[in-house]
Amino acid sequence: MQRYKCIVSYDGTGFAGYQVQPGKRTVQGEIEAVLKKIHKGEAVKITASGRTDAGVHAKGQVIHFDSSLPIPPDRWPQALNSMLGGEIAILSVEKVTPSFHARFDAAGKEYRYILYLGKQKNPFNRNYAYHYPFPLDMAKMEEAARHLIGTYDFSSFCASNTEVADKVRTITGICFKKEDDCLVLSFRGNGFLYNMVRILTGTLIEVGTGAREPADIPALVSARDRRLAGKTAPAHGLYLWEVFYEDSGEESKTTKPGV
Amino acid sequence: MQRYKCIVSYDGTGFAGYQVQPGKRTVQGEIEAVLKKIHKGEAVKITASGRTDAGVHAKGQVIHFDSSLPIPPDRWPQALNSMLGGEIAILSVEKVTPSFHARFDAAGKEYRYILYLGKQKNPFNRNYAYHYPFPLDMAKMEEAARHLIGTYDFSSFCASNTEVADKVRTITGICFKKEDDCLVLSFRGNGFLYNMVRILTGTLIEVGTGAREPADIPALVSARDRRLAGKTAPAHGLYLWEVFYEDSGEESKTTKPGV
Repeated sequence: MQRYKCIVSYDGTGFAGYQVQPGKRTVQGEIEAVLKKIHKGEAVKITASGRTDAGVHAKGQVIHFDSSLPIPPDRWPQALNSMLGGEIAILSVEKVTPSFHARFDAAGKEYRYILYLGKQKNPFNRNYAYHYPFPLDMAKMEEAARHLIGTYDFSSFCASNTEVADKVRTITGICFKKEDDCLVLSFRGNGFLYNMVRILTGTLIEVGTGAREPADIPALVSARDRRLAGKTAPAHGLYLWEVFYEDSGEESKTTKPGV
Repeated sequence: MQRYKCIVSYDGTGFAGYQVQPGKRTVQGEIEAVLKKIHKGEAVKITASGRTDAGVHAKGQVIHFDSSLPIPPDRWPQALNSMLGGEIAILSVEKVTPSFHARFDAAGKEYRYILYLGKQKNPFNRNYAYHYPFPLDMAKMEEAARHLIGTYDFSSFCASNTEVADKVRTITGICFKKEDDCLVLSFRGNGFLYNMVRILTGTLIEVGTGAREPADIPALVSARDRRLAGKTAPAHGLYLWEVFYEDSGEESKTTKPGV
């Protein structure tokens, strides 16, 4: 039995999220169905670095699975991609040690949130960016973001129905980049709570409109109360961009701190 | 009665093309349905600069329609867009003289064809670019394109079932631009025959692979035989990018000759 680590990209638009749900079309369900075919009817479970919600995209989701088929790693992507539809792409497959775990070994993640700021709606990014055609004060948003860098209990930025006990996470960087008519927010950290990036984005938007002040952020973090933070930004602007591992037989990548 | 000229953008993926067809979802059908609602049940016909096929996109299709509703031009886009789905966007509406005709007055058009050259499939452009992950000799393609600039009978580059009598058209420019992993081909001319841009693209691809030589193009044009040209490139890489008018109450734009 060989364990494989895969980098996977998907357009989340047509899926009820990553995780298998009975009667629903999910990313995990599609990939496992293809693996089952390749393994002649034998079920193969895949494990991801974490779930993504309905409509959320991935540029670099990471999964692992075990197989005893004698397929070389460089042939696996083609084998899987030819049977998967166009919405999911296996970008790479590499052999890893049997102890590698896509979720438990993840040392950090980068998410990106894309805001489309154009005045007119754009049919080509309607599922890939959140259309926000109102003025935003980027300097204030960046100032607010600096208050979010560090290790905090992020309960204020976590969906209230989450059952995770420990809500302490470290955000190592939040970057802002204007690309044409879009504003791309990149969030790096050691881990993110349920809906955390979308709530952080919604709160930063409220700073950008002037509804909140950057100086209000530290008290908002300290309050540990979801009701005090901003709206949850829509799913379709969010991308799981990259997952970082310290040691998995591949070259390690480290997150760089700072905005 | 006032005549209006509109610039319209649409994602062609979900449509059976531009033109109304019984029982099918089309761009014209969607826009006319919304105009009918706005006019309280009265049918309003729209006229476009030309049709686009199923899967073909538009960044700047032009249509005209007549209305006696007292809606100012700058309010029309919002009125229409709020009732149209996300796949169609009315980018602008302006008053024109009653003699303006979106099709007959069109002095020229620009189409673009986007080739995605990346090795890996990309879930995010699968409907918006033709994935061609093989080497292409761009210098040869540009040399071939230069033989296509000018006024010719383009029968070799026209779907054979077309009933247009006069197949003489003028191509004023073909531009090549690399954008990240994509190659964008821009075609400008006074008009294009059915499937012409897709057949030109398919033929240029065959030059890029070495299957044809640039020097063979003049004989291919002279032959006026569709069977001798290249494959019709897929619809989903094609965009009607802009339509040019000499005089419609707006500033006129002229096409620039040359590759």
